[in-house]
Amino acid sequence: MTTDTLVLDAAAQDLLFREARTANTFTDEPVSDEQIQAIYELVKFGPTAMNQQPLRVVLVRSAEGRERLVKHLGEGNKAKTAAAPLTAILAVDNEFHEELPTLFPHFPAAKGYFAERPVREASAAMNGALQAGYFIIGVRAAGLAAGPMTGYDAEGINKEFFTDGEHSVLAVVNIGKPGENAWYPRSPRLAYDEVVTTV
Amino acid sequence: MTTDTLVLDAAAQDLLFREARTANTFTDEPVSDEQIQAIYELVKFGPTAMNQQPLRVVLVRSAEGRERLVKHLGEGNKAKTAAAPLTAILAVDNEFHEELPTLFPHFPAAKGYFAERPVREASAAMNGALQAGYFIIGVRAAGLAAGPMTGYDAEGINKEFFTDGEHSVLAVVNIGKPGENAWYPRSPRLAYDEVVTTV
Repeated sequence: MTTDTLVLDAAAQDLLFREARTANTFTDEPVSDEQIQAIYELVKFGPTAMNQQPLRVVLVRSAEGRERLVKHLGEGNKAKTAAAPLTAILAVDNEFHEELPTLFPHFPAAKGYFAERPVREASAAMNGALQAGYFIIGVRAAGLAAGPMTGYDAEGINKEFFTDGEHSVLAVVNIGKPGENAWYPRSPRLAYDEVVTTV
Repeated sequence: MTTDTLVLDAAAQDLLFREARTANTFTDEPVSDEQIQAIYELVKFGPTAMNQQPLRVVLVRSAEGRERLVKHLGEGNKAKTAAAPLTAILAVDNEFHEELPTLFPHFPAAKGYFAERPVREASAAMNGALQAGYFIIGVRAAGLAAGPMTGYDAEGINKEFFTDGEHSVLAVVNIGKPGENAWYPRSPRLAYDEVVTTV
């Protein structure tokens, strides 16, 4: 009803939000590097503060990589991740400010705003999560289901996959075509009046 | 080129990501409550960890509300916000865990995970930013331009608009139809190989 006023067509609304669901099982159909690149080439345009773009993605494709990941996951996330066609570790580069002279060239002072590590970490977490939101939408735009998870040993993943000590995992996302009994019943959403007020 | 592999049609890709831009000027055309509700009723379906949904939105519509907001903004954000048809304060409710028995009913232990305030704040910041990403996409889905900003006195906004001390502002977003010279040239994006690696 209320979505009549949107410009985005109903099929796209369904694909990205209304019918898309967090998947817990997947078919065997592979997810190609070309699909992930197509997703990135679209969602890279999503805005971040000062164009920071802190998000980094590790695609876990090999059996060895999967083994290295699964051991750091919570028990409830191990089996479904071991069986997913592809898993993406979404992390932020806490040294993102080194790129700002290139990414935000018209404001040379930008890099200096992030001289202190805690400031950088907070900004990377915020903007990386924004980009994680865009990425999940992008996975759905590719006709795939995303299964984002936050149940894992974050320190373990950071040390296992980012040996420079400068990256922090944000989420781990299984990606593929939904399999049998892929999702639970949808949990309730807050009503508009519980979320939005006007002054 | 690489976006050929996406299922989402090209017009929707353009609307949401490729042609959408962060706007700094707006026309006088009003943004209605119905449009904002349509956006919410779509993007509320975006996933959050344990269905937390910490995002809260304050629509700043009255002259008085605008005055209360603008005084806390950075100098570069004051004039454009004063002139925007509508501005949304995106914040998180750091007491979101009180809703988990309703929002995540099949896992009664969920609320207890968030007994400690620092754990709640980190989770609200992460999941609220995910939802902020969905919200920005939703604004664009309504055929409107978003102008998200993070240049403000966060403590000042928190005290001005959330007297319970339990909310933290994430971003302030101007919303409307883009006006004259609405945007700067697009800043560069990181290349796929700079962001994505495979193991």
